[in-house]
Amino acid sequence: MSWDQVWIDINIATMSPNISEPYGTITDAALAVKDGKIAWVGKRSELPEFDVFATPIYKGKGGWITPGLIDAHTHLVFAGNRANEFELRLNGASYEEIARSGGGIISTVNACREADEAELFELGRQRLNALAKEGVTTVEIKSGYGLDIDTELKILRVARELGKHHHVDVKTTFLGAHAIPPEYKHDSDAYVDLVINEMLPKVIAEDLADAVDVFCENIAFNLEQTERVLAAAKAAGLQIKLHAEQLSNMGGSALAAKLGAKSVDHIEYLDEDGVKALSESGTCATLLPGAFYFLRETQHPPIDLLRQYKVPMVVASDYNPGSSPLCSSLLMLNMACTLLRLTPEEALAGMTRNAAKALGIEDKVGVVEVGMVADFCMWNISTPAELAYTYGVASCVDVVKNGHLVHQ
Amino acid sequence: MSWDQVWIDINIATMSPNISEPYGTITDAALAVKDGKIAWVGKRSELPEFDVFATPIYKGKGGWITPGLIDAHTHLVFAGNRANEFELRLNGASYEEIARSGGGIISTVNACREADEAELFELGRQRLNALAKEGVTTVEIKSGYGLDIDTELKILRVARELGKHHHVDVKTTFLGAHAIPPEYKHDSDAYVDLVINEMLPKVIAEDLADAVDVFCENIAFNLEQTERVLAAAKAAGLQIKLHAEQLSNMGGSALAAKLGAKSVDHIEYLDEDGVKALSESGTCATLLPGAFYFLRETQHPPIDLLRQYKVPMVVASDYNPGSSPLCSSLLMLNMACTLLRLTPEEALAGMTRNAAKALGIEDKVGVVEVGMVADFCMWNISTPAELAYTYGVASCVDVVKNGHLVHQ
Ligand SMILES: [Zn+2]
Ligand SMILES: [Zn+2]
Repeated sequence: MSWDQVWIDINIATMSPNISEPYGTITDAALAVKDGKIAWVGKRSELPEFDVFATPIYKGKGGWITPGLIDAHTHLVFAGNRANEFELRLNGASYEEIARSGGGIISTVNACREADEAELFELGRQRLNALAKEGVTTVEIKSGYGLDIDTELKILRVARELGKHHHVDVKTTFLGAHAIPPEYKHDSDAYVDLVINEMLPKVIAEDLADAVDVFCENIAFNLEQTERVLAAAKAAGLQIKLHAEQLSNMGGSALAAKLGAKSVDHIEYLDEDGVKALSESGTCATLLPGAFYFLRETQHPPIDLLRQYKVPMVVASDYNPGSSPLCSSLLMLNMACTLLRLTPEEALAGMTRNAAKALGIEDKVGVVEVGMVADFCMWNISTPAELAYTYGVASCVDVVKNGHLVHQ
Repeated sequence: MSWDQVWIDINIATMSPNISEPYGTITDAALAVKDGKIAWVGKRSELPEFDVFATPIYKGKGGWITPGLIDAHTHLVFAGNRANEFELRLNGASYEEIARSGGGIISTVNACREADEAELFELGRQRLNALAKEGVTTVEIKSGYGLDIDTELKILRVARELGKHHHVDVKTTFLGAHAIPPEYKHDSDAYVDLVINEMLPKVIAEDLADAVDVFCENIAFNLEQTERVLAAAKAAGLQIKLHAEQLSNMGGSALAAKLGAKSVDHIEYLDEDGVKALSESGTCATLLPGAFYFLRETQHPPIDLLRQYKVPMVVASDYNPGSSPLCSSLLMLNMACTLLRLTPEEALAGMTRNAAKALGIEDKVGVVEVGMVADFCMWNISTPAELAYTYGVASCVDVVKNGHLVHQ
């Protein structure tokens, strides 16, 4: 065999559903890469002969390989921060006082409107670096802190640029319908018209988004508005997804499922009918433990029902300045287990195989199988459960992206 | 003036109680170091003349300096991990099944008894590096995973060695009375005798501990046993502290206060009488939000009472494999605010000024004042509250330890 690189002295949590072991595990394994793809994976003892002098051989010292991590829900391109608001609230200020002092999402929107692309790019780059060091190889980035045409496009352009200049792959999502901007406070329908008739065509013309998202909630957009935006996105051939059932059971998830959404995200208040709808449509359920933690949520997403109906569960950071200012995907594995009671295997599937499904790229990444893109991580751990169990001491020793060893 | 280094273009959160601004703040500040100590601190505009050609000048780009962080409660020298137990529990195993599979503290004790000093040192070094990168300059390390003479001494020796070989200062605590070892399951008093009559003298003879700690709880040592150990330690001239009121209100805190303890730690179940006792004795209350988080505790430590009685609150990681496997001090600032509702300023005081008090080193470190040891951090942040508000993107750009810029 002629390969570009071979890995030995490894165990592999392939996360493949075709291997019945937990985590799709192959112990005492080997893995070969060719032309950026996984060319061979299996037991070391079955590794075919290859030219050991011409091929770089990497030794994993008995550690574990997993698929590269995929953080399928972030808002990581934004300016400003909300530390003052955090501090005010903990000092006992009321929501009114915080709003008067310029807090809330509008402070982030104002900062994003003022920031230029270079500033947003540099902020995004630092955050992407932080995630990349933890083993993230693909990330989704949403707009939604512009709420006007220019700024929404600016954020999406920066997200696209980040993808071009960083080894981490970036999937972009247009979330113009994130919040009702102050200019449209009394006419949210008119803002929805703007999103559909002005923003969306420009986003499509510049090819700035892979998907469209809406925040469907009584403090944001109602079901009818949500349906209008998602239907327009679908008609344009974009993937759709939804922030749904975070604060109340609005029926957004069922609507999104009916329209063929890739995922519904948050879903603390999702009921059994909603879970059934997801199951029937193959829509993923994205759990966001960082927001659950930071907002001190007590309503748990319906994990048992999601298991019962075999809905693919995704775990993502939701990294954003308002409700999840924790820029760490690995920490989310721990929070998904500790707070939401996922098993470590479910949590890891939520950041690999199922995260790929939520982004519509499950034919390329998310599992370690022959023919998949060679995106994987080498970890200094003795069992895959360690990735979720402990946090803080860096255990990601190598990252391979598109078949190339990343130096970081 | 003749100085070894000067810092300008900085703001300083001195944490000094002598400056009435929040965080003891000096904006547009300057700071000078001489012979490992802080030689001058104040407004840049008042900085005396010095030889600008002979003195290294560091520019902080408008960022913030804080005292070096102090993590006053860790168990960071241990072998093994408890990922299997974590996974078993999340897969629905009962405590009995986990115990039968070798889980619980005894699995850590067995791993520590088997590990040699070199292995423990290397594990501790990696963890210390992780904390140091976040700005920690002093850490406390407890024994307590040996529960026999040789292993308790081994852990303390490793902790002392770490302090000698790492720029982070290490304070050591003998916690022989951490749990009742299986060998003494039916005679805990005999184990307490062993701790007092055999272990403690050896610990003292080798100068292995700065303090002595006990886990006072109905699953560990009772009040009378606790008092025996602490009294013996006190008689030997060691500092004393206590794991107290974590699972129930045993009265351990009041006892420790009466004996002059530096701190009582956990204290979720502490009542007003206990808080009063701490206040009268000047004992610190150490909050451990990592354990609160990981154990999904719902009983909150009595923060309002601690404020009312002006008990110094400390925030520490309690990093350990059983109840707080999160090796991050910075993350604890966020958890202290998010979960325990401390203000960001209280949280930072808990990891600087008050942490120094808990370790009895408040005359040397914990605040940025003239005459104190030059242990401080330079942060790329716009307000000190950011340290607690956000997490994940490295913001610690420089660490100065004993007046030396640390390269890490
Ligand atoms: Zn979101
Ligand atoms: Zn402890």
